[in-house]
Amino acid sequence: MNVPHMPSDDFQRIGAQLLKLISDYHRALQAGEIVVRPDVQPGDVAAMLPDAPPPHGEPWDAIVEDIQRIVIPGVMHWQSPDFFGYFPANASYPAMLADLLCAGLGVQGMLWQTGPACTEMETRVLDWLADMIGLPPAFRSNAKHEEGGGGVIHGTASEAVLTALVAARHRAVTNGAASSDALVAYTSTQAHSSVMKAARIIGLPEQRVRLIDTDAALAMSPSALRAAMGADAASDRSPFFVCATLGTTSTGAIDPLAPIGEIAHTHHAWVHCDAAWAGSALICPEHRGMLDGVEGCDSFNFNPHKWMLTNFDCSAMWVSDRQALLSALSITPEYLRNRASDAGAVIDYRDWHIPLGRRFRALKLWFVLRHYGVEGLQAHIREGVRLAEIFESLVAEDDRFEMPVERSLSLVCFCLKRGDADTRALLDRVNNSGACFLTHTIIPAPASGGTEPRFVIRMAIGGAHTREQHVRAAWDVIAREAAGI
Amino acid sequence: MNVPHMPSDDFQRIGAQLLKLISDYHRALQAGEIVVRPDVQPGDVAAMLPDAPPPHGEPWDAIVEDIQRIVIPGVMHWQSPDFFGYFPANASYPAMLADLLCAGLGVQGMLWQTGPACTEMETRVLDWLADMIGLPPAFRSNAKHEEGGGGVIHGTASEAVLTALVAARHRAVTNGAASSDALVAYTSTQAHSSVMKAARIIGLPEQRVRLIDTDAALAMSPSALRAAMGADAASDRSPFFVCATLGTTSTGAIDPLAPIGEIAHTHHAWVHCDAAWAGSALICPEHRGMLDGVEGCDSFNFNPHKWMLTNFDCSAMWVSDRQALLSALSITPEYLRNRASDAGAVIDYRDWHIPLGRRFRALKLWFVLRHYGVEGLQAHIREGVRLAEIFESLVAEDDRFEMPVERSLSLVCFCLKRGDADTRALLDRVNNSGACFLTHTIIPAPASGGTEPRFVIRMAIGGAHTREQHVRAAWDVIAREAAGI
Repeated sequence: MNVPHMPSDDFQRIGAQLLKLISDYHRALQAGEIVVRPDVQPGDVAAMLPDAPPPHGEPWDAIVEDIQRIVIPGVMHWQSPDFFGYFPANASYPAMLADLLCAGLGVQGMLWQTGPACTEMETRVLDWLADMIGLPPAFRSNAKHEEGGGGVIHGTASEAVLTALVAARHRAVTNGAASSDALVAYTSTQAHSSVMKAARIIGLPEQRVRLIDTDAALAMSPSALRAAMGADAASDRSPFFVCATLGTTSTGAIDPLAPIGEIAHTHHAWVHCDAAWAGSALICPEHRGMLDGVEGCDSFNFNPHKWMLTNFDCSAMWVSDRQALLSALSITPEYLRNRASDAGAVIDYRDWHIPLGRRFRALKLWFVLRHYGVEGLQAHIREGVRLAEIFESLVAEDDRFEMPVERSLSLVCFCLKRGDADTRALLDRVNNSGACFLTHTIIPAPASGGTEPRFVIRMAIGGAHTREQHVRAAWDVIAREAAGI
Repeated sequence: MNVPHMPSDDFQRIGAQLLKLISDYHRALQAGEIVVRPDVQPGDVAAMLPDAPPPHGEPWDAIVEDIQRIVIPGVMHWQSPDFFGYFPANASYPAMLADLLCAGLGVQGMLWQTGPACTEMETRVLDWLADMIGLPPAFRSNAKHEEGGGGVIHGTASEAVLTALVAARHRAVTNGAASSDALVAYTSTQAHSSVMKAARIIGLPEQRVRLIDTDAALAMSPSALRAAMGADAASDRSPFFVCATLGTTSTGAIDPLAPIGEIAHTHHAWVHCDAAWAGSALICPEHRGMLDGVEGCDSFNFNPHKWMLTNFDCSAMWVSDRQALLSALSITPEYLRNRASDAGAVIDYRDWHIPLGRRFRALKLWFVLRHYGVEGLQAHIREGVRLAEIFESLVAEDDRFEMPVERSLSLVCFCLKRGDADTRALLDRVNNSGACFLTHTIIPAPASGGTEPRFVIRMAIGGAHTREQHVRAAWDVIAREAAGI
């Protein structure tokens, strides 16, 4: 039989249908016609899918119908303006169009040769982005391909920290300064779980990852870091890696880069900065205070796919010395050799990350940056922060509530003074109401303000279409449900 | 200022424009109007991109124009029917539409809760696919969430083998059977470079990855494997991992799973099967001979994004025991806890791979499987193999040429009898002609048929729109250019 490829006319027709479906979906989300959290139980979606694969091709009408019947009612609606859970995962029309074009071109950019534009556009837009967030010149590629710094797009911040750990270990061990059995890594008790996961992956035993205590604002304590690194060094262990966080996942705490960098450097340790969420705020100069000391970082990462309107997956990472990455990750089998690479004239991004193959993700940043412009993206960040300030003041005015930690950018953590059981009940009631969706965390003592950890609700603002009305409506529901407990 | 989001009408209008642009691009590719390898030198694309990010939003006319002016002339045309390099990276209209829908929904499916349909559809389509390629029942999820096997979509085969290595190490060390310092991994000299890269990432020193010799067909030699594992075990080292390959990247060699599994199991070593490219052929029952012994594998991986019409990135991996993965990779911070996960009633795919966040990639497989049906995909595979048989016979009939190794599925490796210098020159002339694009590899002695390694050209067929005429035209150019050297 002939291969039943989709005719070009059908592609355009069904594509237009999907564009409309997506538009309608977002219109319905923005109109509040869709409950954020889907009404499905484990197994419900699976029960609607046949047990066996389709032996013959099926008509597109059936497929499009199933999108409406099975898919849309079965997803969490991350793009709803009433979604305040986790952190936002901003989608935008320009980024969606870029994902379409990326798929349409079908380029696999593992080497410069296999995608010159894929490679050079990535280098350039990451230079732009480094500029936009105020990174020092060392992190820019400046089109020098054999030395200096530069940026790369990963899928997730988890991959960025893993890559940083591998490069750090390679540098520490090949410098002859350390045995791989003696390496110790440091991060705060509040760091993202991906740091511990990456440590596990590289084979660093749990007891050689020190979770450093934090201060009352849940930021890493430099004195605790200094003590821990000093004690390890004095015991013939080799401090080799520190992961600082700008904007922890739990509460948005900001680790102080300047003292951390200073302490780390006395031990020649690599400093990675995980700004996965908060990094987007750096495009606004008024939030760049947290960058103080960033010149002491060896690598820096943030996710435009969280709060910068660039659809998942787009995690930007920069290094100040690309050689550390390249020497740790580059392996060249014969079948990948080519003249441009052999001449050292180009960047081959396969050596900058875990995977070999890669999509043309730079298109997403290029579309988003050009459509919104720097000022448009700044407006989005500022709106998120402004709405969080409003929410913060609403909480502050209600004496049933308290905020054990301060608002961080667009994240507000709050709880009922009556205690954890009531706060947990409140979160359930609010989410069950269908009006909005929020998630929680636990704040350890003594940052919790007492001797016990506190359960708090996280209000993470920053959705692309979240407006003041949505934030006020969420508060109204919270205040009302609190009264009913 | 207000955030300048793209209006819904513009999204649909520009989206339709891009659908047309993509259609036109593929029409031009299929009409042979675009030279496969772009005519750009290092720096050419970068020179067309501004140094600084756009301060203000730009009009879409300018962006779309730049796609035509900068992007399309700057990419390698992987989707050209005259692209025979590396391995194919099949794109298809149904998969492109799925990527659009994936971006449009903006779902982040790290947990079941954050994307029930994203999770359950993935489980189901990977069960379908396991069925389609003839994997034993142990690799299917069967909707049991706490035990048994199951499948997951990774970005690339590199991530699959990395994950397998981490799970294998965890199993070996926590069983108490091995110290992590004594672990030894095994793969053939012909295995993909991603195996060595993954070993580096997990911190396994190079000298503890044994590259096992191959036979005349470049398949791993079971006797050499037996000897190596035996010698290590006898020296108090712990064989813990074997990576077998179905269809090596270099020449498409097929490692014999049955004896490999048997030998590995006497040492309780994990067996990973990397079928990245050749795995797609398993949807045709006539190619399932190579699966003999697959029940001895702990994990199995292939890339629908290579030869199964599912746009990059879509790498399918199955394990026969999910607990090995979960116990190696699962870490649950408070902010990710939720009722469905706590109850053990669901799959949370974040614990099955390196990243935390994840896109709704199951849509691609769902669209592709439903559009083509099993028989449509089989027709695509069979066409690729048929064309390779034709090409093989053309080479065989020309006595200037030889094929040091046999054709494997749709891959033919060939060279000039006159020697490597001429074959290298031929490859350059063919690629410079613009008629098609091929890449090379080196075949080690004695498989090369002599005492020296041989440089061979790889003709990798399997493009979505490669027809007999393209293969014959490529051969005509090869035969003509060979005459001119």
